[in-house]
Amino acid sequence: MARVHTVQEPAETRRVPHRAATARFGWEGVELRPYKEDERAPYKSITRQILFSDPGMAGELRYFEVAPGGYSTLERHEHMHAVLILRGSGHCLVGDEVKSLDTRDLVTVPPMAWHQFRATRGEPLGFLCMVNAERDRPLLPIADDVARLRKNPAIAAFLDDKS
Amino acid sequence: MARVHTVQEPAETRRVPHRAATARFGWEGVELRPYKEDERAPYKSITRQILFSDPGMAGELRYFEVAPGGYSTLERHEHMHAVLILRGSGHCLVGDEVKSLDTRDLVTVPPMAWHQFRATRGEPLGFLCMVNAERDRPLLPIADDVARLRKNPAIAAFLDDKS
Repeated sequence: MARVHTVQEPAETRRVPHRAATARFGWEGVELRPYKEDERAPYKSITRQILFSDPGMAGELRYFEVAPGGYSTLERHEHMHAVLILRGSGHCLVGDEVKSLDTRDLVTVPPMAWHQFRATRGEPLGFLCMVNAERDRPLLPIADDVARLRKNPAIAAFLDDKS
Repeated sequence: MARVHTVQEPAETRRVPHRAATARFGWEGVELRPYKEDERAPYKSITRQILFSDPGMAGELRYFEVAPGGYSTLERHEHMHAVLILRGSGHCLVGDEVKSLDTRDLVTVPPMAWHQFRATRGEPLGFLCMVNAERDRPLLPIADDVARLRKNPAIAAFLDDKS
């Protein structure tokens, strides 16, 4: 069991009633952020927007967008992800399954399941992700973990972006 | 301060990795439910789907859809709502403000703010709503509350569906 602590997200206490959608999947008053602060974690062509983060809420809602050919970090952790595809399509790995994703599909990432999202179809893959505000830090795979995952041909093809 | 207790939502422990979107804003394995069990609360033409509710998550994500001309209950409570419009358009009341809503707009309902969602534009108003899994019960307005809200002409027009 990983040690649980609070990840230091900037505390945003936005209680303005209404923030309008803007062009290209942005929102009024919502900053486009780098995907991660942690430079050890490999990823490609992905942005992050924090839509809801408030001391009064036990969950946070973020929007991630992966550009065509990009991918999120392959990682796992004790906290869960609850994902809804808001834009485009692609593939994801969750545990030992590779799934094809279309707009509005739902993805559940259970505790300690390896997971990664990839924009595999020449269009962006944009997704909402609900998480607990208080959560553990992601763990990255070691070489043995990747070797074990790659024994599954579908996962090997996914990791090589041949889904 | 309202007494805080857990609302009895059916405990769904869905950890299946992938649930595909289906026609008409439904999802595989997600039940279309009545909006509320409480028959004292006035509402019209609205459905509820619980997208994510899990003992491992401190938040829940639901999808509500208001048919044209329909509306959610006018109510308030200590817990917050974090809303993203997923389909269509309409109006909402939050506190003492009426807002016009388009697809993908964000709405924050702060603690104890009166709020209602209305599909005022001849199309559905479908929205995601993140809430704390542990939350207080909604309070309904008494006649005095409605009279006070109606002193604001924009709110009176909203409540009479003339937004």
